[in-house]
Amino acid sequence: MQRGFGSDNHSGFSPEVLEALQRANDAHALAYGDDEITARLKALVKKEFGDQARSYLVFNGTGANVLSIDAMCRSHEAVVCAETAHINVDECGAPQRVVGCRLLTVATPDGKLTPALVKTRLHGFGFEHHSQPRAISISQPTELGTLYTLEEIKALADLAHSHGMYLHLDGARLANAAVAMGCSFRQMTTDCGVDALSFGGTKNGLIMGESCILLNSALDIDIKYRRKQMTQLGSKMRFMAAQMECYLESGMWRRNALHSNLMARLLCAEVEKVEGVKIMYPVQANSVFAQLPREVWKRLQQRYFFYDWDEDADIVRWMCSFDTTEQDIYDFVNALKEEICRK
Amino acid sequence: MQRGFGSDNHSGFSPEVLEALQRANDAHALAYGDDEITARLKALVKKEFGDQARSYLVFNGTGANVLSIDAMCRSHEAVVCAETAHINVDECGAPQRVVGCRLLTVATPDGKLTPALVKTRLHGFGFEHHSQPRAISISQPTELGTLYTLEEIKALADLAHSHGMYLHLDGARLANAAVAMGCSFRQMTTDCGVDALSFGGTKNGLIMGESCILLNSALDIDIKYRRKQMTQLGSKMRFMAAQMECYLESGMWRRNALHSNLMARLLCAEVEKVEGVKIMYPVQANSVFAQLPREVWKRLQQRYFFYDWDEDADIVRWMCSFDTTEQDIYDFVNALKEEICRK
Amino acid sequence: MQRGFGSDNHSGFSPEVLEALQRANDAHALAYGDDEITARLKALVKKEFGDQARSYLVFNGTGANVLSIDAMCRSHEAVVCAETAHINVDECGAPQRVVGCRLLTVATPDGKLTPALVKTRLHGFGFEHHSQPRAISISQPTELGTLYTLEEIKALADLAHSHGMYLHLDGARLANAAVAMGCSFRQMTTDCGVDALSFGGTKNGLIMGESCILLNSALDIDIKYRRKQMTQLGSKMRFMAAQMECYLESGMWRRNALHSNLMARLLCAEVEKVEGVKIMYPVQANSVFAQLPREVWKRLQQRYFFYDWDEDADIVRWMCSFDTTEQDIYDFVNALKEEICRK
Amino acid sequence: MQRGFGSDNHSGFSPEVLEALQRANDAHALAYGDDEITARLKALVKKEFGDQARSYLVFNGTGANVLSIDAMCRSHEAVVCAETAHINVDECGAPQRVVGCRLLTVATPDGKLTPALVKTRLHGFGFEHHSQPRAISISQPTELGTLYTLEEIKALADLAHSHGMYLHLDGARLANAAVAMGCSFRQMTTDCGVDALSFGGTKNGLIMGESCILLNSALDIDIKYRRKQMTQLGSKMRFMAAQMECYLESGMWRRNALHSNLMARLLCAEVEKVEGVKIMYPVQANSVFAQLPREVWKRLQQRYFFYDWDEDADIVRWMCSFDTTEQDIYDFVNALKEEICRK
Repeated sequence: MQRGFGSDNHSGFSPEVLEALQRANDAHALAYGDDEITARLKALVKKEFGDQARSYLVFNGTGANVLSIDAMCRSHEAVVCAETAHINVDECGAPQRVVGCRLLTVATPDGKLTPALVKTRLHGFGFEHHSQPRAISISQPTELGTLYTLEEIKALADLAHSHGMYLHLDGARLANAAVAMGCSFRQMTTDCGVDALSFGGTKNGLIMGESCILLNSALDIDIKYRRKQMTQLGSKMRFMAAQMECYLESGMWRRNALHSNLMARLLCAEVEKVEGVKIMYPVQANSVFAQLPREVWKRLQQRYFFYDWDEDADIVRWMCSFDTTEQDIYDFVNALKEEICRK
Repeated sequence: MQRGFGSDNHSGFSPEVLEALQRANDAHALAYGDDEITARLKALVKKEFGDQARSYLVFNGTGANVLSIDAMCRSHEAVVCAETAHINVDECGAPQRVVGCRLLTVATPDGKLTPALVKTRLHGFGFEHHSQPRAISISQPTELGTLYTLEEIKALADLAHSHGMYLHLDGARLANAAVAMGCSFRQMTTDCGVDALSFGGTKNGLIMGESCILLNSALDIDIKYRRKQMTQLGSKMRFMAAQMECYLESGMWRRNALHSNLMARLLCAEVEKVEGVKIMYPVQANSVFAQLPREVWKRLQQRYFFYDWDEDADIVRWMCSFDTTEQDIYDFVNALKEEICRK
Repeated sequence: MQRGFGSDNHSGFSPEVLEALQRANDAHALAYGDDEITARLKALVKKEFGDQARSYLVFNGTGANVLSIDAMCRSHEAVVCAETAHINVDECGAPQRVVGCRLLTVATPDGKLTPALVKTRLHGFGFEHHSQPRAISISQPTELGTLYTLEEIKALADLAHSHGMYLHLDGARLANAAVAMGCSFRQMTTDCGVDALSFGGTKNGLIMGESCILLNSALDIDIKYRRKQMTQLGSKMRFMAAQMECYLESGMWRRNALHSNLMARLLCAEVEKVEGVKIMYPVQANSVFAQLPREVWKRLQQRYFFYDWDEDADIVRWMCSFDTTEQDIYDFVNALKEEICRK
Repeated sequence: MQRGFGSDNHSGFSPEVLEALQRANDAHALAYGDDEITARLKALVKKEFGDQARSYLVFNGTGANVLSIDAMCRSHEAVVCAETAHINVDECGAPQRVVGCRLLTVATPDGKLTPALVKTRLHGFGFEHHSQPRAISISQPTELGTLYTLEEIKALADLAHSHGMYLHLDGARLANAAVAMGCSFRQMTTDCGVDALSFGGTKNGLIMGESCILLNSALDIDIKYRRKQMTQLGSKMRFMAAQMECYLESGMWRRNALHSNLMARLLCAEVEKVEGVKIMYPVQANSVFAQLPREVWKRLQQRYFFYDWDEDADIVRWMCSFDTTEQDIYDFVNALKEEICRK
């Protein structure tokens, strides 16, 4: 399939990943994470995120999110999140089935929670009929491609902690946020008071690389059993660890994220020139949300695969990947223009 | 780590797997299994297992088993299995947590269920206080390295079907069984009446390759949602499909399994010559279970990693892998002899 | 405790209930619902609700709701309901934990769903990342004391059925709705296309009497096991059945509901005369929602127990019971007036 | 139905229960256990079981057992119990569905666990693939009508505590055990080191009265939410509390249990005189297990309802109740003799 703008999951992997796998394919190694590469990765995660950080490799973003929620909440507790959160919309009810807890959702203008929005869900503490709010979950960047500032994250962490709650950050695209903001992973997470992190590399050039990283070591209780029981423990884990090690050590995470962010800005800039198309949110990471006439995006979908984000509102999502080229963008915008003209 | 006999999960992957990944890394592809390679794999599975076969790639053996159970049973139902079954012993209660059902276990002499053994658990039908038996689950080869004959599998399938139940086969090492018995996957499964299959390639030379294959298409109801909700849906699935396609098409499954089985026989033959060591079960696939003096196996574990299978009975498990060499075996048996002599 | 307006759960039981228990206390009877009284009740429910109706006695409203949801949905499916629904707000996440499904909530002006509101949640059919909408759940009367007309219920049932979905009605106070609307239980449920009903008598004069009534017999699959497994099967069920039989046969349901509705109208009328208090919703059943100055309701709570319904908006809830007297209302309104004057 | 020997659940209730309900039916009371009678009951439970005891009323024995397990274990943990335990056999998998944990069952000669039997299940601590043993559960009297001595209970508690585990006691018929052993509830539970207790009164003359009593107050964490979420919170709880208070205070528990135990001994004595019938276990409480020719017990079941306990072994169970009369026993034994003679 031609390169397109459907999802950063549609791209393949960076060449250095294969080399890392090749290097890891050496004789035997203990399974289930008791190998040397996983040990090195754990140390590397501590170096990146701080000494308290405990890394648990899992298979996918849903696994990382559900394990994070499971570390923070029991079934009678609840997670406050944006209505647009991946855990709410795109995991087919995995938190409900696997953890058994509630999500307390809040409508947001731009995918971002604020202390004021969260507070609308913080009631009923101690009342046995109500699920007890126990965590706040945010995505950085959000599912709408917007970014929290460090101060905004800190404010949510403070709010959480002042209520005996935890802050979870869904960082499936954390690299895109880091390069956009010019800060380290640690500055955006540990230093802001984030307690649990879903850290992803799959969308940014790995074959498979996701991790539940507990930044608050008080959460690290029985997690190894919980990961196993929810079916997220990999056997030949060294090959997952080798990818993640490569991701963090080789500079690949930065290189790829810088590129996809840049491409998103180019796409945004080119699209903005097209009459009849409206950019919906600030383009801060690697996604562009646009509103355009229904018949146009419907026809354009015949030529390129992409998701309608809000069909009723005629908003679509275009994602750039680490392998998106400038030419890809020009071709796509030309196609868009053609469909606009055919209107 | 040196090559040893701890687990076939300790070995790496066959070189052709990397080539398959490389070939699959072409431009973009739809995620979550809507890509061409996964489509080809589905067709290939139908070719191997029959037209009714529906393949769902998952991340690990536990995922394949739990999804299979979920396809067969609701929470108020039960699965009859051997006490030694992986689903009972080694999945930290995943079926209980994720499906919510009961396992009805039976003690067996050799890891194999028989109709007579299963019947001891088939009562209480229609009685609302009792979990309703709905499936039988067997492993081929069993966790003790023994094999069911085709007739034995058929008999269990017939028993299941005569009670409105299903037969599940945990085939984490199905290739080892197939080469040992000189029959095709289909002969051992579909043709015997197996309804759901956990089909694994990870232990036999893949990086990661496991599948829930529904051989009875009546079970294929809403499975895509169930897989997603239990966190077992992979995003860049083409890279899992490419491995499994390579596994089935290149002859790798047969080559690797033949070799590891052969090595197990050699290991068995060499060990049998050693006085003080008793082989516990017929060596039919790639594992060897031996009983030997405690101080000997404890000392040998200082030199080689392997599991004590039954510590009270001084039984240990040695697994051969696709990359085990004859020299590995001679070295290991020499070490064993040394420890015996030090007794 | 003096009679008040905290909840219709605060009242006791009608005298005829004890007589029914006494009559049922005759020699021995089979347990778990295999007794004659439960058999009579099942027939009575068919007479009231139609031949398709299948009655399952449970212990409480949460049990009736969760069993109803369990009959309609599997864990990967979802129930559309009002944000204010009891299943969403007041069951501490029981549907999530026990069924594992999602609730898709909709903000409503008055606690009532409409087809237009429900449609905002009906998307993602067939998309494996989204919980599949499978049921609509409404309460009659709603948690805000408002009523659906028969036409409104029919419209929601039609919408549900046109999407292969079911309509559930939480009728914890169905008697209050029936007498308010002057129609039979059947007219409000079966005849409108309701598929599953939580039918309650506890709030209307029973000691304990709740039932999951499946009006669509296609839902009656394995429910007896599901009830048992979710801990809702009573042993000496004849004593629950005897209460419910008394409730339906003696006219008690009507007598009690008529009275509590009447008292709510009187309370509303008296309160409306008090300056500074605003009635929030039409008083159609036995509850009155009022908005009044914070310091007033806080002080009044020192004298009478009642719930603040929306603390931020200064809205409180006052419930009338089958045993509320006119004098109770005058006393309460006098207390209210005194607190208003002290302002 | 005539009085028989099918179950102590088949009997009705003692007359004093109605009086207690009548007395409790006074004006209004807070719901969900915030009433005065429930407060009195909590104090009474502390008096009976010790100051640490925390009482949670629930609806049935399954509810008490599941809430107790939930207080002790998380889903990745396991409960060691006898194969014959009610939690294993007769709750349709409620612990698996609601708690998500495993039960590790042990075959026993007489329904009683011993430290030696339990130890066969205590392995795999720290190994993430295995459910972690976290509790031992025993029934007193057992499901086979046998009794643990105080020393035997203490030994199991000591074993549990030495492994960081808890001891649960299913006391659905604890009164029968107490009168048989001539000791107080506290001597049999708290003083022996029992951590969590399912305490039942329903089988001994109440309409409905079951409680989860946490004797180890360290287990009393968030239990009120857990009870609510698993659907076991009653609204008009004063009427459950009033029954239980009556049970404990009026001497009813002792009177009824003494009688049903006495009747069981009489039944045993009479049956022992009948040739061809073998008493299987010591008759220590209110049940009699007998082995007799199949055609006899099948014919006898035409005249009296009772359960075949082990159909294959021709073992049946006869239960005595608080309302069983001597004449009932003579009539039943005569019927038995008639069926024996017809053989």
